[in-house]
Amino acid sequence: MLDAKEIDARIRGSFARQTIMTTLGAEIAAVRAGEVEIVLPFSDRILQQHEFIHAGAVATIADSACGYAALTVMPRDAAVLTTEFKINLLAPAKGERLRAVGRVVRSGKKLVITLGEVFAEEGGARKQVALITATMMVVETGTGLRD
Amino acid sequence: MLDAKEIDARIRGSFARQTIMTTLGAEIAAVRAGEVEIVLPFSDRILQQHEFIHAGAVATIADSACGYAALTVMPRDAAVLTTEFKINLLAPAKGERLRAVGRVVRSGKKLVITLGEVFAEEGGARKQVALITATMMVVETGTGLRD
Amino acid sequence: MLDAKEIDARIRGSFARQTIMTTLGAEIAAVRAGEVEIVLPFSDRILQQHEFIHAGAVATIADSACGYAALTVMPRDAAVLTTEFKINLLAPAKGERLRAVGRVVRSGKKLVITLGEVFAEEGGARKQVALITATMMVVETGTGLRD
Amino acid sequence: MLDAKEIDARIRGSFARQTIMTTLGAEIAAVRAGEVEIVLPFSDRILQQHEFIHAGAVATIADSACGYAALTVMPRDAAVLTTEFKINLLAPAKGERLRAVGRVVRSGKKLVITLGEVFAEEGGARKQVALITATMMVVETGTGLRD
Repeated sequence: MLDAKEIDARIRGSFARQTIMTTLGAEIAAVRAGEVEIVLPFSDRILQQHEFIHAGAVATIADSACGYAALTVMPRDAAVLTTEFKINLLAPAKGERLRAVGRVVRSGKKLVITLGEVFAEEGGARKQVALITATMMVVETGTGLRD
Repeated sequence: MLDAKEIDARIRGSFARQTIMTTLGAEIAAVRAGEVEIVLPFSDRILQQHEFIHAGAVATIADSACGYAALTVMPRDAAVLTTEFKINLLAPAKGERLRAVGRVVRSGKKLVITLGEVFAEEGGARKQVALITATMMVVETGTGLRD
Repeated sequence: MLDAKEIDARIRGSFARQTIMTTLGAEIAAVRAGEVEIVLPFSDRILQQHEFIHAGAVATIADSACGYAALTVMPRDAAVLTTEFKINLLAPAKGERLRAVGRVVRSGKKLVITLGEVFAEEGGARKQVALITATMMVVETGTGLRD
Repeated sequence: MLDAKEIDARIRGSFARQTIMTTLGAEIAAVRAGEVEIVLPFSDRILQQHEFIHAGAVATIADSACGYAALTVMPRDAAVLTTEFKINLLAPAKGERLRAVGRVVRSGKKLVITLGEVFAEEGGARKQVALITATMMVVETGTGLRD
């Protein structure tokens, strides 16, 4: 397994290659073994018709937080692919920023199961706006995929 | 209920207010009673680390196709909000463009249940890359929400 | 709202009318505001082909634990119906008994969102075998439905 | 791959070992390559508190119909395990019987993705009551698991 510094570099390096994150304005906020946080500041370019942040943007950061949480516990020669996720939207996504926290629930050889929460932050307060469960597939990098 | 022309105008008008669609490059491709299609051309601004289109972008157009399919069957004085969706990712999202097709499965007074498929199109061929089921809430516009 | 004793009586009374629970051998183990536990002892009448407890039996107690957790926070004149759930099966369901714990994540006027965990218990140890998220609909009893 | 007669024998043999099916009263109704049907007659032993068939019983036959649909396309030396499913409940499950139809959407080496529908049948008419999507894991029988 990788040490904490290697895990941090691995996740941040991979995140930097997810061009959608730059497009949406998301940034990685924390990397721990089994847990990753991504922050998405409110912007008027990521909204749905009621001027809340679009559920798809909420899902994008929630999925990546879960996927990278899974990658923190995977061996060096594995890459991660989302095979499915389900998201419950608990409240309108509005505020200064969203924070997605993804955590590993169970780590298997083929699949890693994750649970994530998304919070809206505004003036020091936070409110949960989404709940996600996701299955991540452990892909051998012999397939040509890397982190 | 609205007639076909009113439904078309309603959905396209609302879609035009979803700023995330412009940000991702998505366009509405078809509006029918109970069914909506959204197209997302491949671009290097919406990718994940393996250079496939990010699952979050796939989910964004799938969710909106389902939400707008639901809105086509809602009364004039109702707005639509996604309460949950689940997406299975069947194959890497790559190709010239993605096409999400959302359809109403059951229309109730409080909830509309939808099913959607996302296809990757390349050189005249198409391959299904995702399957989504989503629950849409019928929100009274007296709440201040509009289409 | 109801007090703790009324809630307890309400949930246990409703559970006693769920004939499938007797058929499977499940019992209610705890009722708290926003949280309900159901126990299912292992028996050779509820298995799948590998002699693990069938995922459907796991889902049955997980769904009811979540539904009753939701009912603990609903007003007196409301009944509960599951509108959807998703379950991730983390490990084979085997052991002396299963314990499903359902909790309310968000309580709205129309929908209550819940999260549940199912554990296998064996010789004093326990292992999580499933994770469920479920949406419960608040149904007015004027519809003829009761708890 | 197996021929149609072998597939039929494989599925029916495995189903006969699912003791929960006898307990609930379910029977296998059809086996085709990539598609399996299971029927569950109404009985007063499988109900929830409103005297509808419990969502867990609906999920049990839906999950098995999907799992066996997946098994029809798996190689001889593989067994099937459900890794997750999500079910939307569209209408109360009541009538003379339920019929679950599971179909393969995509068959991969490690995972098989399935889609299922459950119908309530009454007096010659039928109504869809549930929609399920499920991920089935292909398990090598060298693990000790068989069909």
